[in-house]
Amino acid sequence: MAVPHPLAPLSKAEFERARDTVVKLYGPDSSLFFRSIYLHEPPRADLVSFLQAEHDGTLTDSTPRPLRLAVAHYDVIHTATKHLEYAQSVVDLNLSWEIERRVAGPRDQAGYPPFEFAIFYDACVKSSLFKEAMAEFVLPEHFTVTIDPWPYGGLDPDDDRPRLLQGLVYARDGSNNNPDSNHYGFPIPIIPVMDVATKEIIRVDRLATGGAAQDGLEPAPRESDAKPKPLFLNSRPSEYVPELLDRPLRTDMKPINITQPEGTSFTVHPDNLVEWQKWRFRLGFTPREGAVLHDLCYDNRPILLRVSYSELTVPYGDPRPPFQRKQAFDLGDGGFGRAANNLELGCDCLGAIHYFDAYLTDPRGNPTLAKSVVCLHEQDNGIGWKHTNFRTDRAVVTRLRELVVQCVVTLANYEYIFAYKLDVAGGITLETRATGIVSVVAIDEGKRSPYGNVVAPGVLAQNHQHIFAVRIDPAVDSYAAGDSRVAVEESVPVAADPETNPYGNYYEVRKRTVEKACWLDAEPMLNRLVRLENARKKNEVSGRPVGYKLTPPPTQLLLADRNGLQGRRAKFAHHHVWVTGHRDGELWAAGEFTNQSTEEKGGVYDMVQRGDWFVDDEEGEQRVNKDDEDEDGGKNAEEQGRLSSPILWSVFGLTHNPRVEDWPVMPVEVHHVNIRPADFFTSNPALDVPSFKNKASVIVPCCGGRQDLKAANANSEAEEGTVQRDAAAHMQGPGPDLAAGDVGAHVK
Amino acid sequence: MAVPHPLAPLSKAEFERARDTVVKLYGPDSSLFFRSIYLHEPPRADLVSFLQAEHDGTLTDSTPRPLRLAVAHYDVIHTATKHLEYAQSVVDLNLSWEIERRVAGPRDQAGYPPFEFAIFYDACVKSSLFKEAMAEFVLPEHFTVTIDPWPYGGLDPDDDRPRLLQGLVYARDGSNNNPDSNHYGFPIPIIPVMDVATKEIIRVDRLATGGAAQDGLEPAPRESDAKPKPLFLNSRPSEYVPELLDRPLRTDMKPINITQPEGTSFTVHPDNLVEWQKWRFRLGFTPREGAVLHDLCYDNRPILLRVSYSELTVPYGDPRPPFQRKQAFDLGDGGFGRAANNLELGCDCLGAIHYFDAYLTDPRGNPTLAKSVVCLHEQDNGIGWKHTNFRTDRAVVTRLRELVVQCVVTLANYEYIFAYKLDVAGGITLETRATGIVSVVAIDEGKRSPYGNVVAPGVLAQNHQHIFAVRIDPAVDSYAAGDSRVAVEESVPVAADPETNPYGNYYEVRKRTVEKACWLDAEPMLNRLVRLENARKKNEVSGRPVGYKLTPPPTQLLLADRNGLQGRRAKFAHHHVWVTGHRDGELWAAGEFTNQSTEEKGGVYDMVQRGDWFVDDEEGEQRVNKDDEDEDGGKNAEEQGRLSSPILWSVFGLTHNPRVEDWPVMPVEVHHVNIRPADFFTSNPALDVPSFKNKASVIVPCCGGRQDLKAANANSEAEEGTVQRDAAAHMQGPGPDLAAGDVGAHVK
Repeated sequence: MAVPHPLAPLSKAEFERARDTVVKLYGPDSSLFFRSIYLHEPPRADLVSFLQAEHDGTLTDSTPRPLRLAVAHYDVIHTATKHLEYAQSVVDLNLSWEIERRVAGPRDQAGYPPFEFAIFYDACVKSSLFKEAMAEFVLPEHFTVTIDPWPYGGLDPDDDRPRLLQGLVYARDGSNNNPDSNHYGFPIPIIPVMDVATKEIIRVDRLATGGAAQDGLEPAPRESDAKPKPLFLNSRPSEYVPELLDRPLRTDMKPINITQPEGTSFTVHPDNLVEWQKWRFRLGFTPREGAVLHDLCYDNRPILLRVSYSELTVPYGDPRPPFQRKQAFDLGDGGFGRAANNLELGCDCLGAIHYFDAYLTDPRGNPTLAKSVVCLHEQDNGIGWKHTNFRTDRAVVTRLRELVVQCVVTLANYEYIFAYKLDVAGGITLETRATGIVSVVAIDEGKRSPYGNVVAPGVLAQNHQHIFAVRIDPAVDSYAAGDSRVAVEESVPVAADPETNPYGNYYEVRKRTVEKACWLDAEPMLNRLVRLENARKKNEVSGRPVGYKLTPPPTQLLLADRNGLQGRRAKFAHHHVWVTGHRDGELWAAGEFTNQSTEEKGGVYDMVQRGDWFVDDEEGEQRVNKDDEDEDGGKNAEEQGRLSSPILWSVFGLTHNPRVEDWPVMPVEVHHVNIRPADFFTSNPALDVPSFKNKASVIVPCCGGRQDLKAANANSEAEEGTVQRDAAAHMQGPGPDLAAGDVGAHVK
Repeated sequence: MAVPHPLAPLSKAEFERARDTVVKLYGPDSSLFFRSIYLHEPPRADLVSFLQAEHDGTLTDSTPRPLRLAVAHYDVIHTATKHLEYAQSVVDLNLSWEIERRVAGPRDQAGYPPFEFAIFYDACVKSSLFKEAMAEFVLPEHFTVTIDPWPYGGLDPDDDRPRLLQGLVYARDGSNNNPDSNHYGFPIPIIPVMDVATKEIIRVDRLATGGAAQDGLEPAPRESDAKPKPLFLNSRPSEYVPELLDRPLRTDMKPINITQPEGTSFTVHPDNLVEWQKWRFRLGFTPREGAVLHDLCYDNRPILLRVSYSELTVPYGDPRPPFQRKQAFDLGDGGFGRAANNLELGCDCLGAIHYFDAYLTDPRGNPTLAKSVVCLHEQDNGIGWKHTNFRTDRAVVTRLRELVVQCVVTLANYEYIFAYKLDVAGGITLETRATGIVSVVAIDEGKRSPYGNVVAPGVLAQNHQHIFAVRIDPAVDSYAAGDSRVAVEESVPVAADPETNPYGNYYEVRKRTVEKACWLDAEPMLNRLVRLENARKKNEVSGRPVGYKLTPPPTQLLLADRNGLQGRRAKFAHHHVWVTGHRDGELWAAGEFTNQSTEEKGGVYDMVQRGDWFVDDEEGEQRVNKDDEDEDGGKNAEEQGRLSSPILWSVFGLTHNPRVEDWPVMPVEVHHVNIRPADFFTSNPALDVPSFKNKASVIVPCCGGRQDLKAANANSEAEEGTVQRDAAAHMQGPGPDLAAGDVGAHVK
């Protein structure tokens, strides 16, 4: 059997071997609850040695290979004591041997796999507290109760319960006998809270349903002795499934077919190796991140060693408690991989599509196949480059062909579509689309609120933000440690000066190398760019370092008070760019444990605090680690500043004050992060893209044969003296170019 | 014969009637040189009365129609005196009668139609000055000289010559016998300057070719007695036409076909009326703007009365004189309409395409047909909205279908692709793509420069900016004057407060109406939006004004010193948003006359200075015009502040510090301006888009039959106990929804 590539996802057999190895570690006095099992990626140093050999073509059977490792995350429940530990075991798959185990601290909460969310239902059904709360309301006939479990959000400082879940409660109109009738249109103003360990509802929070009070917040209602409150008297359906829509479907939208009759231009090889138009990468997939690109190369030159979505926080801006706890960390609390949709041909992607499957785990550690969680296809994105020679009217036009790696994830009410797009001009684009159903709560009918928008009668869509972090591990034209650098470039106005800038039109392009871990903010008025450069290779044409550039998108950062609960939990969302020193396994912008966090721990903020640096001093020798010289016995030297490869984190987002148009399902809001070659190549890498005319395109006439400009034109063309001119030839000269001699130039 | 719609472009007959009417105004002592002839759009008040009736369905033969007018721009040359006047005549096409004539001031220079640029060649050939300058250089054998005429740029204060042209000079390698061999790779460091009136080269500027001097600028060379300087000794070709490329074309890029076997979903009617998916508009086309959208409606509700590209300035940042004069105004100095490419099926657009033609003029006023200058087609832009119900696994996914109105323009070396995109979710996107060949000058080989990047040996691509202005005339759900308002909305952090914001997660959404003409800058850190609202209609769901929102793109503004030559000429580029009071015919962000301007005149800056206001005072009465009360006899009351409909101008751009990858033709740099409904509709307008599965899509297998994950999965699926699970079902519960009674709720 072939040895898998070090970046190949676990095979089913490997997955099971990892599980079996862990199970054997524990005796009958414990039971295990598996959360995730996946490839434990090799340490960067080992990986790049292997990749270097692979790309050099020097790979042999005797080339040292990184250990083939898996990692399992699981709870250990000690049967007698009911004591629970959250553990992570790294397993050597060749030896079926645990080589490392980490046990989480008592306040470190794992994210929720779907099967853990499920217990919330039963707890509510059994709960007298929940029943008492529901008794305060009267629902219309045929309505049933539906609950969306949510992560509990940030803890109050005095809340020391170990693991909680909360639920948003809705009613569903059962009269249409359709299980997909949209319950989000009928929010019930309570939030039950469950202790996960005991599986009991410990509290039901009542929610305020008015607008804002004049002075201070409207108090949330307490348990009520008043007459039960009738709900949804004037509500109306918020349906989106076609058979329940309040309007007919469009009948005049004709199909657009995208076909590749000669096949695709991409090839998918074993071990998830993808090749397309000089690009080459390996597709990874993890429970937390979903799709990940590894070892992204163009023309066998590495660019990025790894690129992935690292975190997404969604803080809500409604100040009325307990809404401060509506702050999801959609990777840390849930996981994009676990939430990935099974994509459908002809729905999620059009054209000629390759699908990737992945294995996730069930609670017993069995691999479960997640079908078609990533799709891969080519697409045409309009004109790629064009030039018309106005002297000859010769136009050369090529198309911008792209390869798209796409995932769609569902997080309860909401959807994200994320894609890595590569193009023939060497560009890398991370595209994020937000769609799905906005999170809503009840509002008294007829009221409006400063905390959101009324999107249907009685339904308040609260203002919120989505703030993403992407992690980029550069390997700019070299895998060698220390070769990749980060620099910042700005375009800066320069005052007029009679000597150096007489007309005031000069602007200065300033560049500085990032020498030490830091954060940066987008500065569009300085056109601030982040360059990923090779510190040792210069572009042979320009003499400047070979590199790629990323323009930090200038999107709004976290609005919540930075010292408040949401702000402390998401320090990564305080800045647009973080540059940190590489450490193996450090993949999480907001830290590994986001669930019920009170403060970001081990995220980019802490990484910067270590003070890692990226550049040797001028003499070429490694700097002394200043921290080591301090008498700071409490600090682990490992954690302190050291010379490292830089990791770039790009933070961007969307402030989403909902529109009525976002209801009941919102049209996509699209966001792009662009990473573009900047003196990486010695000319436009898309220069060799053929400018073939597409033969399947057709001309559409107009006007059903009536008299019109088109017809008039047809006549006029036949008339003598009418010139069919190229409007582009706006500088067309009467004669040919001038021979050098004609204009007095010497000729060699 | 049918009466044309008031917004229909001139027919050929109307065009000729306009020309004939103007010609008849002048006797044999004058000769005319026509620059442009096109529809003179009706005054806004007359137009909207007509449109209101048209959309109400009350249009009859007796409905008052705006006068059908044309405008002709032309030079009048008085044969005897050679005196030249630039005149604009507005002609009543029914009466064949001039109703208005404007004569430009002596310093107001019209833009260049292509046929005017052409005279530059002859002037150089005849010029001894030019020959003397060329004698300073030795060109390699077989090289010919090629000249790109350019607008002269801004005048020095003491330069009072009336009309000038400058030229960038290059050499073309004739040895390959290909007229499309790329001359831009061989820049010659001189700029000849022509007096257009005398058609004589009056000066040849020598260009500096070194890097920057340490102290002050390297002086430009003067005429030289030294030995002629050999050029291009180490240069290399910069070819882009496929037959001359230095590398083979890619052979592995398989076609992507986009077909609509059941036809398109759009219809083009006479008089350029387009209907598609509830959208409706009329396509206009002017010599200066190219494609324009008029009367843009959704479901028969108006949104924008007119939207167009208004100006584009391209200032270069090289401080060495005379490069401060490299500042094109691509609409005012040239014209997007005149520069429009004749689009090619299967090259510029893929799929099922409708093309629009237009008439431009030749110098004698004859209509010349510009074929296929605008293309119209539908495209698929990925997922439009999606939601998966995690309880049932039911996914509903629709596609984001778009209608694209696209033009491509060539301005000497450079190309722009601009498109108006409408989508099924009510969105309007203005897409701009920059491509073509960057403007280059000579640099001594081996040198580098702070003023640009060396993109080929001896070739310096200078740093520059492209700053666009788009003009938007709103008619938000009403044509009535005074109904459309502009408001500014921001999302603002709010400090934590024990009473009103206990956890600090609240943020305030602040909105204010723009009451008076003003400018604004993008403020992404406040998420600043501009809302186009109806002052009188509220959304029935949210209670907020019906509207559309535009997010001003936070792109870098003009870097040049604002009091310097380039800065004074392009005041519109000092701010991202201008809100001005409507005046008929005021279409130009940098003013009507940009060519050789020394200062922006009649542009958005001046419009704001008038102090127009948009909102009646609180008592509902018109405010007194404060300016009228001043004893300012010099001001024309017509020009002063008055109650007006607001016009919105959006300014955005691209700071372009060239990459080596931009050579020899740059890959597109894409920019979007998004205009989205914001409480205009009462739900997602794309809700009724069918979620049909596209039947032409196919699955692509992988790996050429080798053992792989796909194959492994196929096996594992058959195994007992393996669950094929929907990874999206991450919160899937074990049971059905809870009946209301189960959880204690009362039932009506």
